[in-house]
Amino acid sequence: MTVGTKVSVEAALNEVARLVERRMEKLLPVAEGHEARLADAVKYAVLAGGKRLRPFLVVASADLFGVARDCSLRVAAAVEFVHTYSLIHDDLPCMDDADTRRGKPTVHKVFDEATAVLAGDALLTYAFEILAEEATHSDPRVRLELVRSLAVASGFHGMVGGQMIDLVAETEAMDLSAITRLQQMKTGALMGFSVEAGAILGRAPMDKRHALRGYARDMGLAFQIADDLLDIEGDAATLGKDTGKDQAAGKATFVTALGVERARTQAEILTDQAIEYLDVFGAAAELLRDVARFAIKRNK
Amino acid sequence: MTVGTKVSVEAALNEVARLVERRMEKLLPVAEGHEARLADAVKYAVLAGGKRLRPFLVVASADLFGVARDCSLRVAAAVEFVHTYSLIHDDLPCMDDADTRRGKPTVHKVFDEATAVLAGDALLTYAFEILAEEATHSDPRVRLELVRSLAVASGFHGMVGGQMIDLVAETEAMDLSAITRLQQMKTGALMGFSVEAGAILGRAPMDKRHALRGYARDMGLAFQIADDLLDIEGDAATLGKDTGKDQAAGKATFVTALGVERARTQAEILTDQAIEYLDVFGAAAELLRDVARFAIKRNK
Repeated sequence: MTVGTKVSVEAALNEVARLVERRMEKLLPVAEGHEARLADAVKYAVLAGGKRLRPFLVVASADLFGVARDCSLRVAAAVEFVHTYSLIHDDLPCMDDADTRRGKPTVHKVFDEATAVLAGDALLTYAFEILAEEATHSDPRVRLELVRSLAVASGFHGMVGGQMIDLVAETEAMDLSAITRLQQMKTGALMGFSVEAGAILGRAPMDKRHALRGYARDMGLAFQIADDLLDIEGDAATLGKDTGKDQAAGKATFVTALGVERARTQAEILTDQAIEYLDVFGAAAELLRDVARFAIKRNK
Repeated sequence: MTVGTKVSVEAALNEVARLVERRMEKLLPVAEGHEARLADAVKYAVLAGGKRLRPFLVVASADLFGVARDCSLRVAAAVEFVHTYSLIHDDLPCMDDADTRRGKPTVHKVFDEATAVLAGDALLTYAFEILAEEATHSDPRVRLELVRSLAVASGFHGMVGGQMIDLVAETEAMDLSAITRLQQMKTGALMGFSVEAGAILGRAPMDKRHALRGYARDMGLAFQIADDLLDIEGDAATLGKDTGKDQAAGKATFVTALGVERARTQAEILTDQAIEYLDVFGAAAELLRDVARFAIKRNK
């Protein structure tokens, strides 16, 4: 993937996925002795595949500012570790109780619940360790901003808070603005961090950071609507996870609030808005535009 | 508590406990809307009492270097948030399955398992956010070292790894060196961070950091042996938690490996060793000496 060169977004996604997987494998702990079980569970979860959309957003955004791949791939790995931890905990019997993920048995099924809880805890902790290390960026202030922004995106007012609302929402009616807030916290915040991380690494001027923030917000929502549509229309075999679960659980989604047709239209409008934010970058942001279009057209 | 003034260690512990509790309450999120349940669970867990030993270690160690209490109390709160998260997750049905903690029902009993998992996740995340913020220390390098050191102490090779070994150890025989390693990871690492955090905040010279590290290591082990003895000899009503559980679970502890008498002797030797490390600080470290003696004499 070279900035400005026209390559297919699928090829670019695959390339970053390959790079970040190699990096994650290198970063993962080699545990001997009694804690080997923990290392095994973490490795199983991290290397179970996936689109690696968040790492792609980090790298593509960092590329806009000429950040060394060696730095952006560390941040990409840290973000994917946080995303993986959230999947492990969300899949637990006391949460979404999922048996499969990406076509494979979930961590608590292969290992056990206790190991799954600890594997998630360890990955979250490790993400902050990686960001704080000098190899991530020579400027301590940049590393601190990454740590702080990742914590904000993942915590009370971000991902974890969103997951709490999602659980409460199973038993309560939610209107469109409440669903939007939920999704912005649950999935939008970490996607937003992924895009913004590139700008932080590149010490980008404020106008470009704002543009990327707007892009991430609208793209994240479009992505979530596409996800909700897939849950209804998708095929379990292609998705590698159970479908129709949101509906069965009575969860409030964009599709339950808007209906299928209006939800699809809304996703398209949001994608167009997201892309408009990128005007300031010209041709250099072509891959970020493509990935926004790709995100709502995917079938898995 | 004033450095060098002779006060009882109980009074000093109580004073720091009061200060850190007030600080934690101020730092905790005020959540409205659907995520209020998460804020409630976090508040319940954080303000459920406890000795606040780790906050005390942070503050007493930072006092040695004249660090402003406003800074050391933030770090103390962050450490206690991490300690609290570990208790919430350890108490889960899939882990130690504890119904009470400090004389009160555990978080998953009062709320539910999903809320308990998320409350732990949120507290861990928030600890890193607090450390990364400028109010913790004016020097970015100090903040980064705090983030990195806390992550190392809490992660794979620290607390989480230790908890994994502890779970595996229920089904396996462990010798004394394996038990020592387990305890150094499970509880020693975070206590060690607490003591070292004061030195990091105070930008202490290497010899003093080494001294504090030695003190923390031996004190932490002595503390754990005292804990194991309490599990066997303690009274549930005084402790506010179930006793005899380690034995019933067939867990490998210092007491099962050494027997009661030798375990007690070992705790005393370790305490003396810990105290010797503090010679370099003279009278200023009296409270750290007292707390080491106190830790093995406590009955709860």
